[in-house]
Amino acid sequence: MTIRVGVIGAGIMGADHVRNLAGAVSGASVSLVADLDADRAAAAAGPAGARSTTDPRALITDDEVDAVVIASHDSTHAELLTACLDARKPVLCEKPLAPTVEEGRTVVEAEEAVAAELGRSLVSLGFMRRFDPAHTELRRRLAAGELGEVLVAHCVSRNVRSAPDATNISAITNSAIHELDSMPWLLRTSVSEVAWVSGRKASSLAPAGLQDPALMLLRMEDGTLVTLELFLNAEYGYSTRLEVVGERGTASFTESPLLEYNLDRRRATEYPADWRPRFADAYRIELQAWIDSLRTGAPSPLATARDGLRASEIGAALVASIDAGGAFVKVVHA
Amino acid sequence: MTIRVGVIGAGIMGADHVRNLAGAVSGASVSLVADLDADRAAAAAGPAGARSTTDPRALITDDEVDAVVIASHDSTHAELLTACLDARKPVLCEKPLAPTVEEGRTVVEAEEAVAAELGRSLVSLGFMRRFDPAHTELRRRLAAGELGEVLVAHCVSRNVRSAPDATNISAITNSAIHELDSMPWLLRTSVSEVAWVSGRKASSLAPAGLQDPALMLLRMEDGTLVTLELFLNAEYGYSTRLEVVGERGTASFTESPLLEYNLDRRRATEYPADWRPRFADAYRIELQAWIDSLRTGAPSPLATARDGLRASEIGAALVASIDAGGAFVKVVHA
Amino acid sequence: MTIRVGVIGAGIMGADHVRNLAGAVSGASVSLVADLDADRAAAAAGPAGARSTTDPRALITDDEVDAVVIASHDSTHAELLTACLDARKPVLCEKPLAPTVEEGRTVVEAEEAVAAELGRSLVSLGFMRRFDPAHTELRRRLAAGELGEVLVAHCVSRNVRSAPDATNISAITNSAIHELDSMPWLLRTSVSEVAWVSGRKASSLAPAGLQDPALMLLRMEDGTLVTLELFLNAEYGYSTRLEVVGERGTASFTESPLLEYNLDRRRATEYPADWRPRFADAYRIELQAWIDSLRTGAPSPLATARDGLRASEIGAALVASIDAGGAFVKVVHA
Amino acid sequence: MTIRVGVIGAGIMGADHVRNLAGAVSGASVSLVADLDADRAAAAAGPAGARSTTDPRALITDDEVDAVVIASHDSTHAELLTACLDARKPVLCEKPLAPTVEEGRTVVEAEEAVAAELGRSLVSLGFMRRFDPAHTELRRRLAAGELGEVLVAHCVSRNVRSAPDATNISAITNSAIHELDSMPWLLRTSVSEVAWVSGRKASSLAPAGLQDPALMLLRMEDGTLVTLELFLNAEYGYSTRLEVVGERGTASFTESPLLEYNLDRRRATEYPADWRPRFADAYRIELQAWIDSLRTGAPSPLATARDGLRASEIGAALVASIDAGGAFVKVVHA
Repeated sequence: MTIRVGVIGAGIMGADHVRNLAGAVSGASVSLVADLDADRAAAAAGPAGARSTTDPRALITDDEVDAVVIASHDSTHAELLTACLDARKPVLCEKPLAPTVEEGRTVVEAEEAVAAELGRSLVSLGFMRRFDPAHTELRRRLAAGELGEVLVAHCVSRNVRSAPDATNISAITNSAIHELDSMPWLLRTSVSEVAWVSGRKASSLAPAGLQDPALMLLRMEDGTLVTLELFLNAEYGYSTRLEVVGERGTASFTESPLLEYNLDRRRATEYPADWRPRFADAYRIELQAWIDSLRTGAPSPLATARDGLRASEIGAALVASIDAGGAFVKVVHA
Repeated sequence: MTIRVGVIGAGIMGADHVRNLAGAVSGASVSLVADLDADRAAAAAGPAGARSTTDPRALITDDEVDAVVIASHDSTHAELLTACLDARKPVLCEKPLAPTVEEGRTVVEAEEAVAAELGRSLVSLGFMRRFDPAHTELRRRLAAGELGEVLVAHCVSRNVRSAPDATNISAITNSAIHELDSMPWLLRTSVSEVAWVSGRKASSLAPAGLQDPALMLLRMEDGTLVTLELFLNAEYGYSTRLEVVGERGTASFTESPLLEYNLDRRRATEYPADWRPRFADAYRIELQAWIDSLRTGAPSPLATARDGLRASEIGAALVASIDAGGAFVKVVHA
Repeated sequence: MTIRVGVIGAGIMGADHVRNLAGAVSGASVSLVADLDADRAAAAAGPAGARSTTDPRALITDDEVDAVVIASHDSTHAELLTACLDARKPVLCEKPLAPTVEEGRTVVEAEEAVAAELGRSLVSLGFMRRFDPAHTELRRRLAAGELGEVLVAHCVSRNVRSAPDATNISAITNSAIHELDSMPWLLRTSVSEVAWVSGRKASSLAPAGLQDPALMLLRMEDGTLVTLELFLNAEYGYSTRLEVVGERGTASFTESPLLEYNLDRRRATEYPADWRPRFADAYRIELQAWIDSLRTGAPSPLATARDGLRASEIGAALVASIDAGGAFVKVVHA
Repeated sequence: MTIRVGVIGAGIMGADHVRNLAGAVSGASVSLVADLDADRAAAAAGPAGARSTTDPRALITDDEVDAVVIASHDSTHAELLTACLDARKPVLCEKPLAPTVEEGRTVVEAEEAVAAELGRSLVSLGFMRRFDPAHTELRRRLAAGELGEVLVAHCVSRNVRSAPDATNISAITNSAIHELDSMPWLLRTSVSEVAWVSGRKASSLAPAGLQDPALMLLRMEDGTLVTLELFLNAEYGYSTRLEVVGERGTASFTESPLLEYNLDRRRATEYPADWRPRFADAYRIELQAWIDSLRTGAPSPLATARDGLRASEIGAALVASIDAGGAFVKVVHA
């Protein structure tokens, strides 16, 4: 059985999903691609042997679409998810669930009502780090207790250049949101309070509304302290780091480059310019896991809508900390 | 269109191919699995939704088999390849093409006769390193001239433990054969002469008939010297290293572990116990490339039967060097 | 001219200084060693060809002592420094200047009065990181602007095991004091405010009075944010890390081990059990620089008493932050 | 007691020795510096508070010279060593002992005759790697059996640019000579035979008479095989590598840089342009060990004249292998 997928959004992320589903995932095909830009939709659809449209709602209800991927702008997520629920079709929505906690709650309520009716959940959320081999291996090793109790974790998330309209809020809801989901998942605990500490602003590079870099602190329910340096205009390269510090020792991600060069008085490995090479495997594995669950009828192993809401709720507390001058703010989970 | 693959051999390698073709490659399914051990065949076939048999020749001619993978013992390769050619079915045969140059030549002649008749080649050879991301990236960078002219290359190939019946000859035809194919491919030149230099034998570990480690030297047509330390009982871990030295600098493989640990006074990364984690991506990408070529009718991008013969011919020269006390021996390509 | 040094304190640190001054520093000899434990004093003095005493004040006024090193308990520093000033003898005192800001201020006032009288300063403070090759190279590179403006810095300071009577306060005044001196020195700016954030306590290892690990935040005058994870019971090894993050890139310390091992499925380098291997060069170079200044009459390039006071003042603000529940506290420099 | 040293040769190496002896070694001073270039002699002598001369023989017999360092051209070593022996003065001569085996034998005979007469040896040879912390640590660990029996070792020695008049012979007697001494010393065995294998020549960079890079093979008495890639025009940086492969695992030198940089899409450490930063500690420690032996009357722990002769004898066998087209040639130790 082949799952015929309709993909909404043919930007960088959506086009990657089309390529993976059509050419690197077992048991899937792409039947339809939707994008407001008809040319972009057609360009992504062509090599995959799919049709294209500019109407995402038509895609959702199309007879040849068994399941939907939403990779359009964040602001469209809630509405399109609701349409998928109405059509009773399984959907994988790119993170975030929604830009605001309010919208997210509405989606979760609708989703859980449909799940109760059907006996299975229709919504999966694309927090792909949950399928990144480094993340899954680390989670497994932590659970095995190899480091003893976890005490502290340090995250560093650096991009080459932010979007020109990035703000402190979008930096949280669009970028830091990854750690807001992955850290509770990795450490198997919840976040109880958070703080947002400003530092010195990268004067020439960052947009006016963006304090960049920023330091965020998460205190987990069990007391574990997580630091996150988010630096969207780090210029030198894309890098996602994590070190988990336990009673007996630490574990950290390597950068895992393929090649090392000796050139020009330097021994060097290279950084990618954006996130795609770093997480290419994660996206492919995530899509395969989603398709497998649809083929077998097993529950989706991806993040749920509620997971997405929880990440947004932590983000909301960070935004509140900005307003509170960097003080710790309690996280409220609905 | 889905390519229905029959897999001959359900050992470690064959079972991995079944899993990949059934669950991680786009456009393929496994229809039949053959193994002399009926239980092993059934165990591999079951999760893939395939039938099983103990008769490889019946598999080759089965109507539901569009293409064949041969992953049975090296000694069966030539005969099974000939049967695939007779059946005019495309086949991916694990390396080596055959244990001896003579058998290899027979296969190549048959293969090229059929290819002339059909206008396309049916045989692909499983030198998976040609699809390993580190190898392909290095080959691309070398071609781009980033290191200047290549002058020397150093290969190290270490396994934890050899087969108990390993010999100097099997070490060449079964293990070193990878470098005998990959180095000419990487450097885009041929091997003109080779030498096999014995060192000190690992007394307690290696089988009686195996000088382990051994040092092999390849001199390429353009003068480039390649060294290969092959150590099959290296005990500490599985490791494939390569450093290419050019006029301006060098490039080398990293070990690319996912995690680094600080524990017990050590900062450490881990080695796998065998080759599978190191080359898991290479096998999957190779299979996808093979399936893609079958679906589109494009020529297979995998190694050819003639490539396999050339590697065997280099191996034969290394065996001759053992007999000649380690002197350089010219390579004869038919 | 050979500078005859008297060393007060023959513990680990004092004995190391005796060995260096007697056997690895040009232009110095050790004439006298003082320790309350007469045997320990004699044991350190013997191989250096020095006399020993249990009376530090007699040492200071001894005719064969041209200059004094103080490596006795922190609580004795202020009093012994005052005695050296009274004797008008140059002195190198191990950090900290004194356990409290009040004592430190008294010493600085006395020291500056004598300096005004003599036209040169007598007191040098043993913040050896200022002579560590990694620190000095980094400081030089930062000043050259290679990273652009500095925005954030991350310090990690981990020991294997704390003193059994360690407290949150001693962790600051005795351990974190290194970063409290080195970070303003490296970044060539002052600390304006600090915060001390507790995390989850390493339950089984740390003394009752010690929150371990702890996270400290320093905000510099120019806005640069410095994070310091201090973990005195990190068990796995001794490690001092620093990454400075600038607009264009980052620079960080390597661990600089000599050898790398492949053993037991691991590729590993080793950590020392304490600080001495990591800073052996720094201590030797610092002593040589001090002796050179005494021989040539040039001003001492070591940290000054006032530098020591400034570090203590930052430490006092951190202690105040503990009492304030982790809020930022302004640093007051006299 | 201060040892007053006379230094012959005020080139790069000699000037470094003067600086170390005058400013970084305990118990030594420099009393006299000799160089054929009077200005160069004076420039080196000045900051050390030493006199200068153009006459090395006058230096050797000078009353204020207790011991001599020879750092002049290789061709002068034998003659100057003989003069030191005649004057019965201890001498540290830079490697090599002499450019030819014949000259070396003459010196060793004279040296051993004087040693028999005095009951102590006067000549030490400057194979500084014996004092490099990475080398001494590795030698200690090998002796402790941590890797099991040693089976193979791989050396790589790369320089940025060779001398313009470098030849295959000078590459052996002046550069490879380091490994010809250090490998038997590290592995505590002798070299039984050697081979010199040419590769592809770096066309544009190396002098006409120099095959660069070259691969040398040393077979030790116990069968251990040592490979040495010597590449004098490697351009990218100065690098000395060694990996020793044992039955249980391997140990290798790290490059031990102080800092790591993230800049321009690269994570990089830097290579020095020549050997001095890499071996600065080794030279200082070697000089201190030599001075200590002179002060205490203990035997010098440095390499002996006979060690130097043995290295030259191995070099002679390598030269013979060049003439024999790369075949293995037995080493003859007198």
